[in-house]
Amino acid sequence: MADYKPPLDDFRFVLHQVLGVDALFARLPGAREVDAGLIDAVLEEAGRFAAQVLAPLNASGDAEGCHFDPASGRVSTPKGFADAYHAYVEGGWCGLNAPAEFGGQGLPETLGAAVKEMIDAANLAWGNYPLLSHGATEALRQHGEDWQRELFLRPIIDGRWTGTMCLTEAHCGSDLGLLRTRAQPADDGGYRISGDKIFITAGEHDLTENIVHLVLARLPDAPAGSRGISLFVVPKRKVGRDGQMGGENGVVCTAIEHKMGIHGSATCAMHFEGAEGWLVGQPHKGLAAMFTMMNTARLAVGIQGLGLIERGYQASLDYARERLQMRDIAGAKFPEQAADPLIVHADIRRMLLTQKAFGEGGRVLALHAATLVDIEHLGDDAAAAKAAEEELSFLIPIVKAVSTEAAIECTQHAVQIFGGHGYIKDNGVEQLARDARITTIYEGTTQIQALDLLGRKVLQLKGAGLKHFLARIEAFCRDHADTAELAEFVAPLGRAAQDWSDLTQALAAAAAKDPEVVAAAAVDYLFLSGHVALAWAWAISVAAADQAGDARRAAAKRATARFHYQRLLPRIESHRAAIHSGPANVLDLPAGQFD
Amino acid sequence: MADYKPPLDDFRFVLHQVLGVDALFARLPGAREVDAGLIDAVLEEAGRFAAQVLAPLNASGDAEGCHFDPASGRVSTPKGFADAYHAYVEGGWCGLNAPAEFGGQGLPETLGAAVKEMIDAANLAWGNYPLLSHGATEALRQHGEDWQRELFLRPIIDGRWTGTMCLTEAHCGSDLGLLRTRAQPADDGGYRISGDKIFITAGEHDLTENIVHLVLARLPDAPAGSRGISLFVVPKRKVGRDGQMGGENGVVCTAIEHKMGIHGSATCAMHFEGAEGWLVGQPHKGLAAMFTMMNTARLAVGIQGLGLIERGYQASLDYARERLQMRDIAGAKFPEQAADPLIVHADIRRMLLTQKAFGEGGRVLALHAATLVDIEHLGDDAAAAKAAEEELSFLIPIVKAVSTEAAIECTQHAVQIFGGHGYIKDNGVEQLARDARITTIYEGTTQIQALDLLGRKVLQLKGAGLKHFLARIEAFCRDHADTAELAEFVAPLGRAAQDWSDLTQALAAAAAKDPEVVAAAAVDYLFLSGHVALAWAWAISVAAADQAGDARRAAAKRATARFHYQRLLPRIESHRAAIHSGPANVLDLPAGQFD
Repeated sequence: MADYKPPLDDFRFVLHQVLGVDALFARLPGAREVDAGLIDAVLEEAGRFAAQVLAPLNASGDAEGCHFDPASGRVSTPKGFADAYHAYVEGGWCGLNAPAEFGGQGLPETLGAAVKEMIDAANLAWGNYPLLSHGATEALRQHGEDWQRELFLRPIIDGRWTGTMCLTEAHCGSDLGLLRTRAQPADDGGYRISGDKIFITAGEHDLTENIVHLVLARLPDAPAGSRGISLFVVPKRKVGRDGQMGGENGVVCTAIEHKMGIHGSATCAMHFEGAEGWLVGQPHKGLAAMFTMMNTARLAVGIQGLGLIERGYQASLDYARERLQMRDIAGAKFPEQAADPLIVHADIRRMLLTQKAFGEGGRVLALHAATLVDIEHLGDDAAAAKAAEEELSFLIPIVKAVSTEAAIECTQHAVQIFGGHGYIKDNGVEQLARDARITTIYEGTTQIQALDLLGRKVLQLKGAGLKHFLARIEAFCRDHADTAELAEFVAPLGRAAQDWSDLTQALAAAAAKDPEVVAAAAVDYLFLSGHVALAWAWAISVAAADQAGDARRAAAKRATARFHYQRLLPRIESHRAAIHSGPANVLDLPAGQFD
Repeated sequence: MADYKPPLDDFRFVLHQVLGVDALFARLPGAREVDAGLIDAVLEEAGRFAAQVLAPLNASGDAEGCHFDPASGRVSTPKGFADAYHAYVEGGWCGLNAPAEFGGQGLPETLGAAVKEMIDAANLAWGNYPLLSHGATEALRQHGEDWQRELFLRPIIDGRWTGTMCLTEAHCGSDLGLLRTRAQPADDGGYRISGDKIFITAGEHDLTENIVHLVLARLPDAPAGSRGISLFVVPKRKVGRDGQMGGENGVVCTAIEHKMGIHGSATCAMHFEGAEGWLVGQPHKGLAAMFTMMNTARLAVGIQGLGLIERGYQASLDYARERLQMRDIAGAKFPEQAADPLIVHADIRRMLLTQKAFGEGGRVLALHAATLVDIEHLGDDAAAAKAAEEELSFLIPIVKAVSTEAAIECTQHAVQIFGGHGYIKDNGVEQLARDARITTIYEGTTQIQALDLLGRKVLQLKGAGLKHFLARIEAFCRDHADTAELAEFVAPLGRAAQDWSDLTQALAAAAAKDPEVVAAAAVDYLFLSGHVALAWAWAISVAAADQAGDARRAAAKRATARFHYQRLLPRIESHRAAIHSGPANVLDLPAGQFD
């Protein structure tokens, strides 16, 4: 595969021009010192690390996979992964977004999101090790006691240890209410955790001397279901209150999974046998504690999708320019060559532009969501923080599900452009398609995102987030009502937003009578919402590009936006028809009569 | 994964009730002796072979893959593949559709197509070995000289040897006009073939003592491009005119590919070094000879897609019934259990019904296409044969591309229903998704099918095939204009057919002015055509089920048809919008400005 070229120019354009983060950060007390120079320096350095250290390990990590030694329970990551991790630690990347009081750099999530996309584009499997640390950091930061933060957070933030999230058990994935792992109170004020977890990313590895597990388990007096789950911090090796490392803590990896993709990411079955742990947050409130960090975790997986789209786009674009095959349908474009390059063909261009539209449009949407995280956490305006949180929690399921579903579609296009040469391992694009496949599943399936969006964020929370986002679209349309160059986008965007709003009202009315309306409409509503949200992202991108004055970029953004509006946005019609068709056509057939 | 259950009941229903093959075969002199008893016996026996012999080798063949020994150039297939092949030969399956004069059973292609779906559902990779023999058989039967047929056809048909199609070279896949393999005339009336081929399925293996390669190559006086390609028969081991086997023939496998899927299918790089070969058909007419067998080869790959859909559907349906996770949105359906089974959830049902609709609808369409093959080849009515050939060649790109693109979509749904348990290798569904990925590429990519459909079959041939198919739809709508139970299908089907016809007219007019219209519309036109064709397949299925009187089946067919009409058919709206948007939105961005 062609080398990964970090899209630094587009990141700078999106951050500075489209989203105006310089002015935004200047308004946020927690980000005031983050100026354009710092942003660009971080982007450039991260791009170099991703391209030079991580990308070369992507294919080899996939081919080698992780190793498990049943006798010791030890997991070895692929050759080079540990060295890359140590370089990452030395580069100071572990604490990029972590609080300064625990040794982090405290930089905005927006910047972290851009860095994350480059890591994921270069090597998705490797990126899961720091990603899980980020989740554990968030959990401890928001819900841990002071001594827990002091003891566990600092080594994670400085990269000496990593973190995990231990949720899933064999019989419960989406439905955590079913989990069985138990926590028994001990005399020392702690707990003894016993049970079995599966699908634990980075549950065991050879990158660090200790691993900090954040574990969901039930206390003895726990009510049944999801209201009886508590969160515990359980280190792999014991840690004294003085920070001294002790012996093994009854946490062992019993197997690693053999998967379709992300072979370099260790997916572990973990056995807890009376392991010492401490309660994080309130008893029985573990699920709520988990959910407070869902926004950033789901945003991160959405960004994984975007990284894969970018990587597949770069690879298939290079190939489409080089590979000579057939003549343009209207006659030879390059008669001096044996054939025309693939990129002359209309459908090759359709597949390239589909990738570009989802990749760059999705980037704007994801980074916009990240700015909302920063407004919420780094600002001092309570009303703005509340509005940001509402809009963010509305956008998160869209960003997560639509970016990852688009990653599946787009990496399939990348393979298709390569033809038979894409199906063999040599060119690396089939790996992207295999890696992409997990992203619509973990951190909440597309189905879970859809129910979260329509059931909770729109209906239960009365569409507060949707209103903020619609207001944003309306403001754009109003501001540009007379901008002739944007007319081709403003009118359809306004219409799509109005239809979206009307559809939402209609669904709310129907759902009040029949809750199955929600379940039967949710996924189509999610995709429809995503296409409209991306239409907004493309409209503001063209407006910003026109303003910024780079004619080459302005032309490319306009062409891609036009493609989105004319070739992708119309998909909302089939989603709308599916929604309007109601629940009967999926519910009527009795379960016993499907075969 | 759950055992493969051959869908014998649906095959019988589709063949006897929906397509009425018993009456059809009675009208065809070449199929007159094929009665319902014979059909059902063959189906049952094939189902048993697929389920008991092939299916158990599917996961193990994927895990083991093929082995290549660089020193000898030998390829070993996975454990059990050779034994299964020998059992297949002993069962008499090799010659199922082959002419009786060369030892075949001469049974209709329609029956062969049904058998093929079961083989592919059970073990797609294994199925490629007999599939390629089928292609070589067709080439020799239609274009070979008598002595070539006698010498090569009989051992292929009785299974002692297998065949290959050697088309692709490193620099030419879709564009065979670029190929470089040369054929030098020799004193013995034969030729010496030299060159390198890649992606040769079953190019080398350990199933048989000889392999018959059908090779495209250029004669010394060949014009450049696709009009200078000739077809040659080149055995792996030399064969005397008396049938005596000689020594090695300068044909060696130099490597096998490591691929995303179909690991058990040997994809070989082949080197020809002055190999003895004989011209098949006319000089420089090799591509035309190839195209005469494209219909059945492309139909076969479409059927591969259907086999994968059926297998993924069975697996995910079983899982959806067993796996307990969450409660129905309207309240617990099974309060006595810890949670409700997945199949209560509306979106799980949407994913199941999508698989069922594409799988069963696609089966009707593919088997209908196969009946056209039989009408063309086994009948004695020249006008009917011509009409069948025209309709068949129109339907082939639709069946091939839509079944395989649907296979990608549907196997993704199967994985999604399994969630994380689908991403790991243990449950087998991720293999289906990997295997499916090749089917939209080989035997002509979706893009090639689309250009064949719109550019050649519709525009160049003035829509002769489309007219036959539209007439079929119109006849159905007319016959059932007053059938109240079918009103929900007849009206939208009639409308969709009319719109399809109008759209085709509009495209023809626009294409006359600008050929790029064709290239920019082709893939969307293909999908739109597929959804309408499947709507016809579902309408005739419901009508037949209502007639046949099995209330359980009639209800299931109706529910699935309704799902197709209400949830899948509306996709034509987004395809129509994309087509109407014209070529500018894909062509305007200069190739140098995509990044």
